[in-house]
Amino acid sequence: MTGAVAFWFEFASTYSYPAAMTLEAEAARRGVRVIWRPFLLGPIFAEQGWTDSPFNLQPSKGRYMWRDLERTCARLGLPWARPAIFPQHTVRAARLALVGADAEWGPGFVRAVYRANFAEGRDIADAAVLRAALAEAGADPGAAMAEAGTAETKSALRAQVDAARQAGIFGAPSFTVGEELYWGHDRMAEALDHAAGRA
Amino acid sequence: MTGAVAFWFEFASTYSYPAAMTLEAEAARRGVRVIWRPFLLGPIFAEQGWTDSPFNLQPSKGRYMWRDLERTCARLGLPWARPAIFPQHTVRAARLALVGADAEWGPGFVRAVYRANFAEGRDIADAAVLRAALAEAGADPGAAMAEAGTAETKSALRAQVDAARQAGIFGAPSFTVGEELYWGHDRMAEALDHAAGRA
Repeated sequence: MTGAVAFWFEFASTYSYPAAMTLEAEAARRGVRVIWRPFLLGPIFAEQGWTDSPFNLQPSKGRYMWRDLERTCARLGLPWARPAIFPQHTVRAARLALVGADAEWGPGFVRAVYRANFAEGRDIADAAVLRAALAEAGADPGAAMAEAGTAETKSALRAQVDAARQAGIFGAPSFTVGEELYWGHDRMAEALDHAAGRA
Repeated sequence: MTGAVAFWFEFASTYSYPAAMTLEAEAARRGVRVIWRPFLLGPIFAEQGWTDSPFNLQPSKGRYMWRDLERTCARLGLPWARPAIFPQHTVRAARLALVGADAEWGPGFVRAVYRANFAEGRDIADAAVLRAALAEAGADPGAAMAEAGTAETKSALRAQVDAARQAGIFGAPSFTVGEELYWGHDRMAEALDHAAGRA
């Protein structure tokens, strides 16, 4: 039996990028299973009265974050280019990630979308970009896009946002191990260690 | 010649507590000199339109922070008790820390005040608590209190807040190494490593 960590991610979230790119390898090293839980921060931020990313609402924090993220990516050897659009519209990508959450192509799709956003300067609301990410991950793009557009998937994503709220989540990336919540790429190792200890 | 890190701290700041308690030893291990820079977050938060700590303004973030801080203190072996007053009034303590910034008693005073706030449940706006912290750190409490109350010290603290703003600081703890800014206890090691590399 292995411990498990749930990874709560939003495709627009900057620090979710280094987390998404390194999580699977770090989890494997510890024998921890990853549960991929895409969600949307927009509705959660809106409840705070925020209509934009806090990094745009607070310019000094935003300036810092872009520099810090650049340093973090350099340290981890991840490709990085500041996206022209921030934050991006992520609902289509999130629905696709939900469709793929238990599929073999899921993690590869998640990484391809983050790379498109934070390394390749692509518009991840664009269906062509999403189809390319699906193909790269080994999914059938047509079938995945069709399933992502169903009422069932739309409602499942809304339920996922409710589940995030329920878990006390207010930002991304977040990690849950049982009842314990960890927020931020900075807490990824601690969450994985905790999950490994429960294995 | 050694590299130096400037440590920007606010006595009300929760994550400044583990940073303040561990910084000197971590810096010494790397041969890095610490410049102690007390400041006030209140005026900087007020410019964001915040009249309270963001941890109070955002209850889900606040709930998370208290649990996360408790875990962090346990991991570091630091005593910890959630303060009844949060955030505390810190202007008197900050003026004293500024008086002691280059004195031998400075770092010990800073740690004593953080312990009073986050481990002993004391009111750090109380002159008796501050006098005890000064005495514990080996300062002359009467002389330090007198100097902290001068117009010169008051104006020096305002200048320190301006300098923080100038450095792009929006939260605490922050660390600066030359032009590089690091925010959060999570970035302390990275800041120290950077300072050590410049030695």
